[in-house]
Order: sequence, then C-alpha cells, then structure tokens
Amino acid sequence: MAQKSVAGPEIERLIQLLSKLPGLGPRSARRAALHLIKRKEQLLVPLAEALGVAVEKIGVCGSCGTVDTSDPCAICADPDRDPSVLVVVEDVADLWALERAGAINARYHVLGGTLSPLDGIGPDDLNIAPLVSKCSQEQIAEVILAISATVEGQTTAHYLMDQLSHINVNVTKLAHGVPVGGELDYLDEGTLTQALKARTRF
Amino acid sequence: MAQKSVAGPEIERLIQLLSKLPGLGPRSARRAALHLIKRKEQLLVPLAEALGVAVEKIGVCGSCGTVDTSDPCAICADPDRDPSVLVVVEDVADLWALERAGAINARYHVLGGTLSPLDGIGPDDLNIAPLVSKCSQEQIAEVILAISATVEGQTTAHYLMDQLSHINVNVTKLAHGVPVGGELDYLDEGTLTQALKARTRF
Ligand SMILES: [Zn+2]
Ligand SMILES: [Zn+2]
Repeated sequence: MAQKSVAGPEIERLIQLLSKLPGLGPRSARRAALHLIKRKEQLLVPLAEALGVAVEKIGVCGSCGTVDTSDPCAICADPDRDPSVLVVVEDVADLWALERAGAINARYHVLGGTLSPLDGIGPDDLNIAPLVSKCSQEQIAEVILAISATVEGQTTAHYLMDQLSHINVNVTKLAHGVPVGGELDYLDEGTLTQALKARTRF
Repeated sequence: MAQKSVAGPEIERLIQLLSKLPGLGPRSARRAALHLIKRKEQLLVPLAEALGVAVEKIGVCGSCGTVDTSDPCAICADPDRDPSVLVVVEDVADLWALERAGAINARYHVLGGTLSPLDGIGPDDLNIAPLVSKCSQEQIAEVILAISATVEGQTTAHYLMDQLSHINVNVTKLAHGVPVGGELDYLDEGTLTQALKARTRF
C-alpha cells in the first residue's frame, strides 16, 4: 500500500529526499523534516545554505580523488605534507578516518572502490592508472596501501602491488590491527594509528 | 579533545549541521555528507532545492498550528473535512501520524507541546487560548483530545477539559489502545484507528 500523503507536496518531497540519506528511514526522515521546519533560522536556513555551497563549490580533486572545495584539495596543496609518501585508500570516508586519527602527515590517493569482478568493477573503473603514472613521474618513495582487510580489498591490494612492482617505490600495507573482514572506516583512531605505525613491507 | 577537521570548512559545516538532525550522530552525518556529495545530481542538488523551497514556502498555519506551504493549511482549507470535529494534538508529528492512519476526516488543532510546570511550560506557552476561542466562535460539536498517555499529556488533557467545560462542546479522548506511557507518534496505524473509533466521553 502506498504511504498516505501527510502534508503538501513540497514537504513530502523533502521527507522523501531525506529518507535517501544513510541512517534515515521513512519515519526518521519525517522527524528530521519536522525538526528542520521547526528550527527554521537555526537549522533549516543554514543547512539549505550549506547544501547550496556544496552544490556550487564541492568537487573532486584532480590529483588525489578526494572531495573538497578546491582543486587541488587542501591536502594535496599543503606544503607541510610529506610528498614522498602516498596513502592509497578505497574511499573518501577512509581518508577522513585516517585524517581524524592524525597518524600520518602524507598525501592520499582515493581509488573510488575495490576490484569486484562479480559486480563488474575492474581496474578501469577505479582510479588506478593515475596512481601508477603518479608513482612513475613523481618522487614517491613509499606507497602505503591502507585498504580494507576484505576479500575485495586484498584482491585490489595485490593487483596494485603487481602494477607498482616495476616502479622504484616501496609498497607497504597496514599492520596487524585491522580486524580481518573489517572495514577501515569503522575503526577507532588508536587502532588506525597502531596499524599505520607498524606497517610492513608488502 | 576537539574533533580534528577532515575536510574544508564548507564540508565541515555541512557535516556539523547534518549531525543536528535527529537520528544522525557525528559519524553518520559524515557518511550522509559524503553520500550527498557523491550523488550530486541525484540527491545533493534536489535536496538543496527542496530545503530552499522549505525556507521560502513552509510556515505555520494560522488556524490549526500545523506546518504547510499554505496558510490556511491544506487540511484547514479542505471543504470535504467535517468542520464540526476538532482533533487536538500535541505536535505536528502526531497530526501526521493520525493522517497516515486515515482514521478520521476532521480538522486539527496543534498545541505545540504539553503542560510541564517543571520545564516552565504553562498554558500561555501552548496554542490553547486560540483553541478555546475557536470552540466558542465556530460550530464545533466535538473536540477529540488525541494526546499522549503520559503524565504531562494527561495533565494537559485535564486542563483543556476544564477550559472547555463552559462551552457547549463534547470533549472526548482516545479510547483504550494507546499504551500507558506511550507516545502517539510511535503507534501503528491499526492501533491509532481503533483508539479513534472507540473514543469515549472525557
Ligand atoms: Zn587532492
Ligand atoms: Zn491548518
């Protein structure tokens, strides 16, 4: 049975869009919409503005693949980052998790996912070729594969190791500390820091 | 310890605002922000537009106190609603829950909360005086108090009963079916329908 409409089409549309956010279902999207409408000046107006700014300004960094309001992103453009170390992550959320941990002052490379032949995701669907050419052309001493300990993550890591094997670069991986089968983004900062410090040669 | 910044200030602000929505904490707000940024055309742009429309158009109905894009709201303006029956609710969320149940084709009056002396919420802080004058001036035959079975809700119901006692209007309340201590907005539609059908004299 179709959900009965409870308000004007504009409110219904807002609820419907909010319900597409991860963590919000139809009921919590209704509560979120009402929460916003009731706090017009404190929350609705600022959030509308923040989303408008996001629409206008946020894009993908042409160098590392993260999202930011500048291209190159603030991390790639930061002169205090060690340019010789590149941390390869699956996703922007993983980059953010590592930055929150504050465990390393390097630059990143966001793959945009992992190899998954069953889902039809091959090397060309990921941000891999730019990584290889970056490592060939720039003075990169170490590539840290900060990739989830899932089957797809490890398949991807082995593929990258293979692609980078003919380049003069040390490829390392995160140390013990990442639980087998666990996703990086859910780890606490201490575990991430330990895993980075105890990284080993691939 | 302050949360370390993981992205530009515009993204941080978006995350911070999203984390104020009910159901989203700091972690899920980050995921929601990333989800939005990655789905720019499908989700970020439409949501930014929907919030802009909400900022511009959504207000409080001067007649019943619900939120809508028109004043009077679509329910108050609906000629097919029985104008002689008024359903009094604490909150817009309760109005929405009753409308979803589709149990009654009447009009509403939103109190905006319940009496709570401990929190300093007295009769003047709620939408009560307009309810009393509406019942005095219009041809209202029945006022249904669809108020939560909490202590504050029942205190409020008794206060309203008292205020309406000198007016020629039948005051009824929801029947058994509302669990003691339960909040209206969490009930399933069948329970709400039964509670409305079996309503009793106050
Ligand atoms: Zn970058
Ligand atoms: Zn109204």
